[in-house]
Amino acid sequence: MKSLNSVIDHTILKPIATQEEIEKICREALEYEFRGVCVNPIWVSLVYNLLKGTEIKIVSVCDFPLGSSWTEIRKKEAEMAIDNGANEVDIVMNLGKFKSGRNDEALSDLKEIVETVHPNGALKVIIEAPLLSDDEIKRASSLVEEAGADIIKTGTGTRGAVNLHQIDVIKKACNLPIKASGGIKDKETALSLIKSGASIIGSSSGVKIVS
Amino acid sequence: MKSLNSVIDHTILKPIATQEEIEKICREALEYEFRGVCVNPIWVSLVYNLLKGTEIKIVSVCDFPLGSSWTEIRKKEAEMAIDNGANEVDIVMNLGKFKSGRNDEALSDLKEIVETVHPNGALKVIIEAPLLSDDEIKRASSLVEEAGADIIKTGTGTRGAVNLHQIDVIKKACNLPIKASGGIKDKETALSLIKSGASIIGSSSGVKIVS
Repeated sequence: MKSLNSVIDHTILKPIATQEEIEKICREALEYEFRGVCVNPIWVSLVYNLLKGTEIKIVSVCDFPLGSSWTEIRKKEAEMAIDNGANEVDIVMNLGKFKSGRNDEALSDLKEIVETVHPNGALKVIIEAPLLSDDEIKRASSLVEEAGADIIKTGTGTRGAVNLHQIDVIKKACNLPIKASGGIKDKETALSLIKSGASIIGSSSGVKIVS
Repeated sequence: MKSLNSVIDHTILKPIATQEEIEKICREALEYEFRGVCVNPIWVSLVYNLLKGTEIKIVSVCDFPLGSSWTEIRKKEAEMAIDNGANEVDIVMNLGKFKSGRNDEALSDLKEIVETVHPNGALKVIIEAPLLSDDEIKRASSLVEEAGADIIKTGTGTRGAVNLHQIDVIKKACNLPIKASGGIKDKETALSLIKSGASIIGSSSGVKIVS
């Protein structure tokens, strides 16, 4: 098993995060050798300047946390993230269309974003599992895999916490690596999620988790 | 004083809102003669088709609720909102830059978005008052007015509720109409905010407020 630090995406997404706070989490990512640093779009180039040449992945959220904008905007934002130095983009699938039974539109949206991000970056697709039934989690997971995404992510953290059951349902429905995210604040929770099948832990409490 | 219904932006922004739910709030907006209907970008054209030719304003949020994307993306999304039939765009000011002391960048971002939205639409700028000190609310309010925005909006509803004190501080700092938003769930709260100086009420509880 990989060491805990090496699977953590060290995350800061609050809108009032300052440049100083972004610089701090980059220093922490270097010190604790985290997997990645996950920030809002405006900070991607700063993080790139601080972390380029290291092993740490630069992760930008896009159309976050609602996932409810037009495909054209989502693609353009993902493209800018990669152009600014991001290695990975974390984006929410279009849940409004998915819940309205318009799965083909939710799928084609994701396919276009995958095409935009590849081959220069990887795409994580967030399904916001806390808002979905088990059956919906299964169908969303299949859809994300069919779209060609690289990683499936459980939630944004704004609509409830991840739990072991969600990981279990996702794991049975698709073969993608799973990023667990949402309410992970201590080592025990992180370890239990990894034991259940999560490959990556997204958290704003990375330092606390490994300390 | 205007009747209460006529100042309410009837709002549904949850990511899992279905087409059926969007259609329902449009019917309610017609029935109760609300001021506007506020939705996520993907639903703007549907709302336009249901409400065009009526007095009800079509409002799209953009880069919501974080306000932390690039100006280019924010402008493009606001432009698409207007092109799809929105009369107004509600967008969060770039709080990361504002809190980092980069007010000139936060200001120029908003000026560019104002230019994009005018003259075919109006721009509301959200300052997310629950996250700001009184001094910051004052400075943010001045900045929003200087940018040429049409309306100042207190918050997104994702970071705490609006209160009378926030309205008071904003009112003293700028001359823009104020949209109060965040945690407004009943008539008493709505009326007290209007009495304090709010011109528009944003709420997902519009029907309950007027019933």
